Amino acid sequence: MQIAKVCGTVVSTQKEPSLRGVKFLLLQFLNEEGQLLPEYEVAADSVGAGVDEWVLVSRGSAARQIPGGETRPLDALVVGIIDTVSVENRLLYSKRDQDR
Amino acid sequence: MQIAKVCGTVVSTQKEPSLRGVKFLLLQFLNEEGQLLPEYEVAADSVGAGVDEWVLVSRGSAARQIPGGETRPLDALVVGIIDTVSVENRLLYSKRDQDR
Amino acid sequence: MQIAKVCGTVVSTQKEPSLRGVKFLLLQFLNEEGQLLPEYEVAADSVGAGVDEWVLVSRGSAARQIPGGETRPLDALVVGIIDTVSVENRLLYSKRDQDR
Amino acid sequence: MQIAKVCGTVVSTQKEPSLRGVKFLLLQFLNEEGQLLPEYEVAADSVGAGVDEWVLVSRGSAARQIPGGETRPLDALVVGIIDTVSVENRLLYSKRDQDR
Amino acid sequence: MQIAKVCGTVVSTQKEPSLRGVKFLLLQFLNEEGQLLPEYEVAADSVGAGVDEWVLVSRGSAARQIPGGETRPLDALVVGIIDTVSVENRLLYSKRDQDR
Repeated sequence: MQIAKVCGTVVSTQKEPSLRGVKFLLLQFLNEEGQLLPEYEVAADSVGAGVDEWVLVSRGSAARQIPGGETRPLDALVVGIIDTVSVENRLLYSKRDQDR
Repeated sequence: MQIAKVCGTVVSTQKEPSLRGVKFLLLQFLNEEGQLLPEYEVAADSVGAGVDEWVLVSRGSAARQIPGGETRPLDALVVGIIDTVSVENRLLYSKRDQDR
Repeated sequence: MQIAKVCGTVVSTQKEPSLRGVKFLLLQFLNEEGQLLPEYEVAADSVGAGVDEWVLVSRGSAARQIPGGETRPLDALVVGIIDTVSVENRLLYSKRDQDR
Repeated sequence: MQIAKVCGTVVSTQKEPSLRGVKFLLLQFLNEEGQLLPEYEVAADSVGAGVDEWVLVSRGSAARQIPGGETRPLDALVVGIIDTVSVENRLLYSKRDQDR
Repeated sequence: MQIAKVCGTVVSTQKEPSLRGVKFLLLQFLNEEGQLLPEYEVAADSVGAGVDEWVLVSRGSAARQIPGGETRPLDALVVGIIDTVSVENRLLYSKRDQDR
């Protein structure tokens, strides 16, 4: 998985019928130091992530491994909202600090 | 998924029999600011996208997750025509504005 | 899919038994302007493509979506010989012109 | 597979239900000379790897090929702790030397 | 598939049980001119390849398409030892010449 920050949304009305009701989040990837990378991904959301939150994103066929989602043409999925990222016993990111 | 702009078409007569009738669109990827990237993709179209429209493209096995398409040797599919892209409450792209 | 030019062949006698009889083409990728890129791919051929022809290549599990090929350890397949590539109503490539 | 060094952990409480109990390791990739690369990956751990250990990481659908893990939305998995890496009969890395 | 040169081995004792007995080769990728690229891959060997040999490597789910290997968490497999690589009727590589 990659670490990404939710930075927006994408809306599409004319789409594959199986994608009706799917929310598309615009994610920007972060490096392991928490800096924004130029790469982005549009991913389906399954955990209720909001703008500015750090999330874990799975890509490829993993994006369809949720109940009822096996046959949707998705290649990216937000699988979790990140609480903390720790590097060598140092706390790199804490959602609690961001929410203050 | 990635955001891409439809910029052309590719025609192939001598191809895998299962690909008969599939329309191939030439897509150029856009970055999250809407600027054209050098990368491109040839994708099957399943939503009737036209030149200059912004679309969502799924890659990998996701491209075969449409009824009747499970066994076609495709690795890229246009899964939706984009209406709007919003970044941090700012409207980055609106199809309506483009159509005027 | 990506656009590539057939530039050679690869021969392997000592290989996975399921790959017996498979022809391996050496492909060099082209960008959307038709210029050779440094990246290449060795792909199985299923359409009878020849040297200098432009082809469409599918990668990943798509390369096994042909009758009888589902269990071969292939990750790249030539799925079509390109007739034309058109960008914004301009003909970028035409096989007919090349064959003259 | 790629060679990576375990450099931290990622904690997520609000996540896909199927990911409960999965430990997420933050891995930084190494090149074939053992130098840290800028790329990282968050991977599920199935072998009990600890910080500073060198590990083998599988990506893509391979990350779900463990008993009970077939339907979890994971795209990266630590599949082994590395004992030695040898290049042209030269020992590039030995876990034993690191543990001293 | 990509062309790579076998340059070493990786040994892991503490690993996924399904990987017992699998030999891991360290491969360095070659470009289409036969020059070593900085990218490498650790791949399972199924054809008995040795150091300095040129091989074809398949990545992704293709790496599990061998009898008995369908459920092993592998994402790279050596599928053949290369005899010759020919580019535009020029012999770029011949194993016979190397073995002299």
